[in-house]
Amino acid sequence: MQVHESTTVATFADLRVDGARLWDSLMQLARIGATDKGGVCRLALTELDREARDLFIAWAKEIGCTVRIDAIGNIFARRAGLRDDLAPVMTGSHIDTQPTGGKFDGNYGVLAGLEVLRTLADANVRTLAPLEVAVWTNEEGSRFVPVMMGSGVFAGAFTLEHALEQRDREGVSVRDALSRIGYAGENEKPHAVGAYFEAHIEQGPVLEAHDKTIGVVQGALGQRWYDVTVHGMEAHAGPTPMELRRDALLVAADLIHAVNRIALDHAPHGRGTVGWLDVHPNSRNVIPGRVTLTVDLRAADDATLTAMDSALRAACSLAGEKAGITVDVEQVVYFPPQPFAAELVGAVKQGADTLGFASMDVISGAGHDAVYLARVAPAAMIFVPCKDGISHNEIEDARADHLEAGCNVLLQAMLNAAQKAGSADA
Amino acid sequence: MQVHESTTVATFADLRVDGARLWDSLMQLARIGATDKGGVCRLALTELDREARDLFIAWAKEIGCTVRIDAIGNIFARRAGLRDDLAPVMTGSHIDTQPTGGKFDGNYGVLAGLEVLRTLADANVRTLAPLEVAVWTNEEGSRFVPVMMGSGVFAGAFTLEHALEQRDREGVSVRDALSRIGYAGENEKPHAVGAYFEAHIEQGPVLEAHDKTIGVVQGALGQRWYDVTVHGMEAHAGPTPMELRRDALLVAADLIHAVNRIALDHAPHGRGTVGWLDVHPNSRNVIPGRVTLTVDLRAADDATLTAMDSALRAACSLAGEKAGITVDVEQVVYFPPQPFAAELVGAVKQGADTLGFASMDVISGAGHDAVYLARVAPAAMIFVPCKDGISHNEIEDARADHLEAGCNVLLQAMLNAAQKAGSADA
Repeated sequence: MQVHESTTVATFADLRVDGARLWDSLMQLARIGATDKGGVCRLALTELDREARDLFIAWAKEIGCTVRIDAIGNIFARRAGLRDDLAPVMTGSHIDTQPTGGKFDGNYGVLAGLEVLRTLADANVRTLAPLEVAVWTNEEGSRFVPVMMGSGVFAGAFTLEHALEQRDREGVSVRDALSRIGYAGENEKPHAVGAYFEAHIEQGPVLEAHDKTIGVVQGALGQRWYDVTVHGMEAHAGPTPMELRRDALLVAADLIHAVNRIALDHAPHGRGTVGWLDVHPNSRNVIPGRVTLTVDLRAADDATLTAMDSALRAACSLAGEKAGITVDVEQVVYFPPQPFAAELVGAVKQGADTLGFASMDVISGAGHDAVYLARVAPAAMIFVPCKDGISHNEIEDARADHLEAGCNVLLQAMLNAAQKAGSADA
Repeated sequence: MQVHESTTVATFADLRVDGARLWDSLMQLARIGATDKGGVCRLALTELDREARDLFIAWAKEIGCTVRIDAIGNIFARRAGLRDDLAPVMTGSHIDTQPTGGKFDGNYGVLAGLEVLRTLADANVRTLAPLEVAVWTNEEGSRFVPVMMGSGVFAGAFTLEHALEQRDREGVSVRDALSRIGYAGENEKPHAVGAYFEAHIEQGPVLEAHDKTIGVVQGALGQRWYDVTVHGMEAHAGPTPMELRRDALLVAADLIHAVNRIALDHAPHGRGTVGWLDVHPNSRNVIPGRVTLTVDLRAADDATLTAMDSALRAACSLAGEKAGITVDVEQVVYFPPQPFAAELVGAVKQGADTLGFASMDVISGAGHDAVYLARVAPAAMIFVPCKDGISHNEIEDARADHLEAGCNVLLQAMLNAAQKAGSADA
């Protein structure tokens, strides 16, 4: 069919976002829930979240977007395409934060999307497929679990009903919290998405270590999370000779080393972390009787992740047997590895190359809304460096030029996808 | 000089304590502060402590003892000797307990001493030197630190003034707590002690493991306690590749192993324990940025303890360097090793042999009032088994026949010392 448009792809290629406007919007949004240390505390579905949502919607409407809210509170700001029957090319992220969160995690992805739409509005050009910016509800999971709640419901990872029933520590349900802030929208079937991009700060040190501006994200690591309990025998540190001890912490130390070794044995993408550990009774002169610890294993493919799982269970058995101690292992979370769509990943890479930004292939070690979106649409992500790889921290920081670069790559990748959407059925 | 006595050593050797009376008194004392789980919660200088002290004093007076209280609340129940100018042969322990303490820890030593005096009263015999039973204030240190407060003041380990100024978590000082329960006694110079014995449950598993009734305690291990802080770099478990991590818990695991190895390298008496460990931020998917942990090293002689100290510091440096991480080590407590007096230890051994009890040489891994008394008088201890080596626990348990056996050994050892006191200046 004939493409009805006044602009050409060549014209699109010349478009550039306004980096200063993007930065200003980030700073303006960061004032809602700003902390003394320069971070943001804006938990999901609080009054502060409502304020931030209202601001985003006001901005989207200023440039002529239509706005819809779904039943889990996800916001979709839509800029009509020339062919509104085509599935939209979508971008987005989240604007809820950790209790001691930063200004960029999530917020960047949402406002980079808004900046793309603003750029097109300024240029008075229209894409073939419609474009949408999504604000996903409760990505962080700090107030309500599961994490990535809005995108999870959208992608069918769990049901709307399950999500609505979750409660925070004060007993407030997601359902009630949504109603209170006026963001309980229509319960309708999730709409088709033609392509999904998400720009995000890296939250890790790789781009900075390699002095690259753009991370071309190939996919997300699969994850297995475990609760491990080591059952020793509590006893006095003084009167109990070494050979008569059953020290749970000594076995836990074996496991901490094992988890590290398992990750190293599965390089380059294998990761293993003991992040949480609790000693009972945790007294200076008492041999630990019980240690509970968490294990977080990640890998790029399921075969590797399964091998790491086996290695962990073997290490627990071995360490326990050696010490005459019981070690319980319970898997509590599983996220499968999620490769991104080759074509969209290629568009990100091409965008970075065309714009002259140093880029590298990376893999997302963390979960993102894009990982759920990849279950229902072609998806890809664009990473930009964050200072010292630090996020989920009030000192989280990122460079304005990097944020602008990532936004320009997002613009080009979205335009590319929006125009191809037409050619696919031409 | 001539020994003025109607009884002979031979007569003394035939004396036996009343095991049932000892057990009954233990059970009666245990009712003051009894817990649902069969233990005792009777913190130092509380109303319950006062009740227990009052009961002990009533019992002591029933058999004609004189009772004095010193300025830190130590109680001395004295049974006059034929030669009251001689320094008393003393025994004792404590009747304060841990919050979840048992019926025997400390209480046994006090009531075994009382049973010795009761036995002599029943037999209507008098020793050459006077005998005393001491109840030392606040051995446990659960409410006020330092631990072994009463015996520490008596032995000059720290000043009376320092002890009186200590406060509990509610801000109540030792001085005020003593006044409230009516146990702030005379501030007089500690009196001379001719010999000090202390009977105690072992609080460890060695006697039980070797099927022995009497532990002939050779001395107490020296102790060095440390606070260790490992400074890593907090980062996301997902996005941070293994090679870019500075994981504080991984270094802590090295140290846990090192502490264990250092103890094993200094067998048979070397002990090393990491009993307390705190992870920051202690989040499942965050690489630990900081770990603080305690180290408790013990050894029978100071040269060994010093070598263990050096090995610990070397291990901290090595583990830190390897990981590019700072490790701070601070020694917070030092108790020197304390050998007991050979002659008194011999008397304990001889008592066990004469009475036909299976005994073995042991060393005290824990601190006891006797360890401070050994600084100002010849001292020794008698251990009896406790079930599964468990103490500082409501399920702490001991066998009546073992308690009786230890008490008979105490009787013989005290009589031996009390009669020798005369011969020394004969």
